[in-house]
Amino acid sequence: MKQSRHRVAFGMVLTLLCLAGAPSEAAAAANSAATEDCLSCHGGIHPGAIGDWKHSRHAQVTPAEAMQKPVRERRVSTDKLPDNLANHTVGCAECHTSNADKHKDTFEHNGYQVHVVVSPVDCAGCHPAEVEQYGHNIMSHAYGNLVNNTLYQDLEKSVNGAYAFTEGRLVVSDPNPSTREDSCLACHGTVVELKGLKQKDTDMGTMDLPELSGWPNQGVGRVNPDGSLGSCASCHARHEFSLGMARKPYTCSQCHSGPDVPAYKIYSVSKHGNIFASREKGWDFEAVPWKLGKDLTAPTCATCHVSLLVNDEGAVIAERSHQMSDRLPWRIFGLIYAHPYPKSPDITNVKNRGGLPLPTELTGEPVNEFLIDGREQAARRNSMQRICLACHAEQWVQGHWSRFENTIRTSDATTLATTQVLSTAWEKGLARGPAQNDSIFNEAIERKWAEQWLFYANAVRFSAAMLGADYGVFELGRWHASRTLLEMREWLAQMSMAGEKVNKPAGSEVKAGSGSETRHKAVPRKQ
Amino acid sequence: MKQSRHRVAFGMVLTLLCLAGAPSEAAAAANSAATEDCLSCHGGIHPGAIGDWKHSRHAQVTPAEAMQKPVRERRVSTDKLPDNLANHTVGCAECHTSNADKHKDTFEHNGYQVHVVVSPVDCAGCHPAEVEQYGHNIMSHAYGNLVNNTLYQDLEKSVNGAYAFTEGRLVVSDPNPSTREDSCLACHGTVVELKGLKQKDTDMGTMDLPELSGWPNQGVGRVNPDGSLGSCASCHARHEFSLGMARKPYTCSQCHSGPDVPAYKIYSVSKHGNIFASREKGWDFEAVPWKLGKDLTAPTCATCHVSLLVNDEGAVIAERSHQMSDRLPWRIFGLIYAHPYPKSPDITNVKNRGGLPLPTELTGEPVNEFLIDGREQAARRNSMQRICLACHAEQWVQGHWSRFENTIRTSDATTLATTQVLSTAWEKGLARGPAQNDSIFNEAIERKWAEQWLFYANAVRFSAAMLGADYGVFELGRWHASRTLLEMREWLAQMSMAGEKVNKPAGSEVKAGSGSETRHKAVPRKQ
Amino acid sequence: MKQSRHRVAFGMVLTLLCLAGAPSEAAAAANSAATEDCLSCHGGIHPGAIGDWKHSRHAQVTPAEAMQKPVRERRVSTDKLPDNLANHTVGCAECHTSNADKHKDTFEHNGYQVHVVVSPVDCAGCHPAEVEQYGHNIMSHAYGNLVNNTLYQDLEKSVNGAYAFTEGRLVVSDPNPSTREDSCLACHGTVVELKGLKQKDTDMGTMDLPELSGWPNQGVGRVNPDGSLGSCASCHARHEFSLGMARKPYTCSQCHSGPDVPAYKIYSVSKHGNIFASREKGWDFEAVPWKLGKDLTAPTCATCHVSLLVNDEGAVIAERSHQMSDRLPWRIFGLIYAHPYPKSPDITNVKNRGGLPLPTELTGEPVNEFLIDGREQAARRNSMQRICLACHAEQWVQGHWSRFENTIRTSDATTLATTQVLSTAWEKGLARGPAQNDSIFNEAIERKWAEQWLFYANAVRFSAAMLGADYGVFELGRWHASRTLLEMREWLAQMSMAGEKVNKPAGSEVKAGSGSETRHKAVPRKQ
Repeated sequence: MKQSRHRVAFGMVLTLLCLAGAPSEAAAAANSAATEDCLSCHGGIHPGAIGDWKHSRHAQVTPAEAMQKPVRERRVSTDKLPDNLANHTVGCAECHTSNADKHKDTFEHNGYQVHVVVSPVDCAGCHPAEVEQYGHNIMSHAYGNLVNNTLYQDLEKSVNGAYAFTEGRLVVSDPNPSTREDSCLACHGTVVELKGLKQKDTDMGTMDLPELSGWPNQGVGRVNPDGSLGSCASCHARHEFSLGMARKPYTCSQCHSGPDVPAYKIYSVSKHGNIFASREKGWDFEAVPWKLGKDLTAPTCATCHVSLLVNDEGAVIAERSHQMSDRLPWRIFGLIYAHPYPKSPDITNVKNRGGLPLPTELTGEPVNEFLIDGREQAARRNSMQRICLACHAEQWVQGHWSRFENTIRTSDATTLATTQVLSTAWEKGLARGPAQNDSIFNEAIERKWAEQWLFYANAVRFSAAMLGADYGVFELGRWHASRTLLEMREWLAQMSMAGEKVNKPAGSEVKAGSGSETRHKAVPRKQ
Repeated sequence: MKQSRHRVAFGMVLTLLCLAGAPSEAAAAANSAATEDCLSCHGGIHPGAIGDWKHSRHAQVTPAEAMQKPVRERRVSTDKLPDNLANHTVGCAECHTSNADKHKDTFEHNGYQVHVVVSPVDCAGCHPAEVEQYGHNIMSHAYGNLVNNTLYQDLEKSVNGAYAFTEGRLVVSDPNPSTREDSCLACHGTVVELKGLKQKDTDMGTMDLPELSGWPNQGVGRVNPDGSLGSCASCHARHEFSLGMARKPYTCSQCHSGPDVPAYKIYSVSKHGNIFASREKGWDFEAVPWKLGKDLTAPTCATCHVSLLVNDEGAVIAERSHQMSDRLPWRIFGLIYAHPYPKSPDITNVKNRGGLPLPTELTGEPVNEFLIDGREQAARRNSMQRICLACHAEQWVQGHWSRFENTIRTSDATTLATTQVLSTAWEKGLARGPAQNDSIFNEAIERKWAEQWLFYANAVRFSAAMLGADYGVFELGRWHASRTLLEMREWLAQMSMAGEKVNKPAGSEVKAGSGSETRHKAVPRKQ
Repeated sequence: MKQSRHRVAFGMVLTLLCLAGAPSEAAAAANSAATEDCLSCHGGIHPGAIGDWKHSRHAQVTPAEAMQKPVRERRVSTDKLPDNLANHTVGCAECHTSNADKHKDTFEHNGYQVHVVVSPVDCAGCHPAEVEQYGHNIMSHAYGNLVNNTLYQDLEKSVNGAYAFTEGRLVVSDPNPSTREDSCLACHGTVVELKGLKQKDTDMGTMDLPELSGWPNQGVGRVNPDGSLGSCASCHARHEFSLGMARKPYTCSQCHSGPDVPAYKIYSVSKHGNIFASREKGWDFEAVPWKLGKDLTAPTCATCHVSLLVNDEGAVIAERSHQMSDRLPWRIFGLIYAHPYPKSPDITNVKNRGGLPLPTELTGEPVNEFLIDGREQAARRNSMQRICLACHAEQWVQGHWSRFENTIRTSDATTLATTQVLSTAWEKGLARGPAQNDSIFNEAIERKWAEQWLFYANAVRFSAAMLGADYGVFELGRWHASRTLLEMREWLAQMSMAGEKVNKPAGSEVKAGSGSETRHKAVPRKQ
């Protein structure tokens, strides 16, 4: 670096001001008296949480100041602010005492009606559009969509259940609540309920503090004590609640990294991810609206799926949306076959002709009544392609999408062949499936089959969608999808030759413990 | 941010100067009239692409200015610039209209002869040395080396093929072109050809635009419409074409992360990778030449494999090379056994004594006539060690290389044992191999064998070479290599005891669909 | 941030200066004459190493200056500096010639008594408290704990051994020394010994240089030529020896990323890891003491496990400790079952009732005499929770720990069921185990069992501890733990039906080569 020391220093200062997202309005906004009360004790007790908040825009700009920006530059979406929120910072009290009557976990604390669990209802005071959109996002229904689906519950029990090997028999019982909260529900969301108040000795004296079930949790579909769904802190981490942090792929990686939904890993090995990693520190993640080619030069997750994007002249390329499925014609993961996106974010009532709670048949045909139609798919495809076209020429975009949709078809075809191998095993009595009213996830061969689509076919589609081909071949993709099929085919032949005639081969059965008997009866099975 | 627009702008400039490494010559260079014509429409349509270019050195320095630097500091390698490129920026028109007669995809566009696919031939106007070197790089032949090798084609068909399970038989057909472009060819490169012009309605009126097959693609061995091989944008991402970005390991990670070639992942858990991750933001990735200990304090991929390196006094430690194999005595991945580097980047004519297109026998002996000799290996080892020695003492370097070459031998020995288990299965008729003129990759046991060397033995060698031991033991290395061998040994014993006497065990056969019959005949097999 | 604009700017400048590792005391300190002598030759030869050191605090501050800071701000822990170290930089000579008589690898070099391998004894001149604490850290005994444990040696031989398949038999011999140094010992540490001096021709003339076995190595338990254990450079990378680098998770990732100990990967997908990745560049990694909420707003590995933490007012939240287990009530990885932390860092004498060198029985009961008691566990739990509480409320912390300790129990229960399946196989003679005086890691089914706990149950606990649920379900966790159990159950049933009556099934035996016979006899087995 040949710049003079002086220029470097000055550049660095401005760099940090720009990059760390610290608004220059600093110093003006005052805390409410209630928040000052909170800080007087909690400042010393929880320096991490308070320090985090001090770095936030909430701590530095009043909502009234935020409203003075031109509409397109606003981070608040309300037309009219509640009077009590307008003219001081958004501090501890503003969130933890708002809507006190709606929160079942509200408790009296040094003269304030406080609740621990801040919910989207509280955020909606300033950000109502985002909360409303998020309610249409399938993520807000992630709890119910999981626990009210009998097939998913079979799968969860097979994965998380309590196993015991007794007298030569393998028995599985339902996972206990803590196990569920520590696994699936960590991302999907727990049910947070007030169990009661409990007296505790603290450094500040004896206090009655609430006991909460399902806590802590920041899952996207958390069922809050006020009945609302979701946690804005899933993506806008407490207590900075940053827009810039949510725009970085690290946030999405918390739930979208595993082999069931490897979006982050595939992004990381894509050209987009490469450019992000190399250029991240020069981008402006806090700018609203987000100017393509200026604030950023390659997309992050949020760029394509959420953010308000404009070009140099401020013309809108994409509107902000917390619904996210707005630009998604296909649902490519989490289920046996890809299919058009579901119409409703609440998919607990989906059922196929075979009676299974699936949006496709076991042979792949979509159950159209629950899914968006071709016209809606085209509209969503077009919305996403407008973003592609902001960087890429028409030929590029058409070529990419043509390949992606080809890969949806071919990956589903491999899954169909794999499913037919398993169906043959079910028919021959080499494994027990829907016809025997048995779980389709509780035998080794069934779990192998599930990996074929839940991990591998899934990854193949993601890698096509997001241009991370390396992942979709060798990491956990076509290699493994086809290897699994070959292995299942060999297993079928060996088992067939072993002359197994019993309904369920010895050794592959898993006996359900008492906890699961009821649930199993509730599962509608193919007739 | 309430800073005045002026201050923000100034801050941003300095930000970019500091961070993106944009040259300080900024502001002087003017665009050509043709480029201005391009920008007048495309600036608004593709703000991402144009914004990216605006951040580039191409947009800020004229080639004539670039030539004024001392030779060692130049990023251009030509002795004499073409007159038409010298005195304005390298903008849209300079690349997309150059060598118009050579490009079969050239089309008339608003009075210009434009081609979509910029090729190394275009880049050679200013960067001829790099283009020439890259032609000797095995990567430039990545397309042909893959698709003209019958064994690789067997493997690709097994991995990417279209499978169907019909009447109890598993049938596989060749993957369709889109599937191939979405998988192997994404990195290896597609064949990009003009299919014709097609009339399209655009916001600017009706236009004849080219239709291209194999597009988009930025694979390292792309076969361009002008017949040239490769895409400089593989590593120097469009449209910033940055030297600094190519020097960061993120770029290499796009193709070198999967278990078949886990270089990036192993680097990440090495001490080198740790230092890079911690110190990256303080390094100067744009400096030419690259001063060890000043511009950087630990190597990235490019440091050891590509870049021009000097010490504090400017003495050369390593010359820049886009051939890359210049410093590689061994080829340690992608094939059954490690072996001395091939002499030619075009390895389509390699054949072993058994008639297989491999640089070693199935038992590991190298096919010397196609490979560099010990003297050339020593020269390359020495070139690489000179870089090691710039940070490490003699004992350190010798100890490291001794271990690495020991690991080449021991990893190959484990692969030999594994191959002998499979050969025994072939001999006993428990699987079908070369003697039966059958693919060596189309059965479950063969794929397991392939993982032993393509993933695990491979990773063991990479981890030894790049000091990422954690990966080479537990991540995907010795643990898995030996476990695979133990599993294959158990499979062999079980199958032997099951008294299999048929040539191919029921259930493991994969019938080739019509698309593959021809190809199979073309494969030379061991007699 | 309520600091005045001026203070922000100044702070930011210092932040950057600090972050890049350049202390602000720069420019004052002088090198010793001996170090200048070193630099006069080595500066040009090893620009990378020297450049690295020039960026270090060692090169810019004298120990005497370092002592002038208030105690809590010091990076040195001695009460009194050795005179010869006080008043110049800590350069080449200060480390490589100190304690010359203690180092068996000391050699005469241009008039100086130099040793290559700098050991903790040398560092203790200024940092005695850290060296002393580290001696109580189990990591400092990583070499002996591995190589003096017969079970681990069985496992290492199965993983790293030299395999040959001869006349239908699979034979394994001990790994050669280079293989061991390139795998387990890379992290655990090698034994570094002087083999002798060897005359070498160098650019500076002929010299006698030492030949070292086990070199290079920076493993945490390295046995140094002076008999001391460990290498401070494991975490404080040569030659910058940075405190800030050791505080970043990249350092820990070198040894704690693989499936056996996936701490880094789990951190990466946790909320903590997300915040670190997003905000890293704004944090002050060099500040001593480390102020929560100011210097950092989410924990890294070091924050919870090592560093001296204070709140805004400077009150201590956690003392610095290089023992690390200070805050760990449980040992959750590397062994079959989780258990209370061992009392002593040297665990070579641990033995269970069955005579195996394990801190639990094969059925999970802890061997209490070697482990800390409940009271000590409570104290350590409390120490860690104090750190949690610096950011999180009481309910949050209790809820989290309750789940974590539930997961310890449930993950161990799944391992117990898996172990019982294997024990049944041993009893039925379908595999050979302790009763047959055979290794418990040398058959395919035993390696599958080992993956259940060493990789999967392990990861489940880590993900619970560090809130990276995504990893603990789908990445390599509950999914794989339960799938492994189902597969083992199926294998047991199939093998049982195949009517295997022999003690060891054909095909699963691994014959030990000559190198292992002795060792096998030395293993105490269950009677």
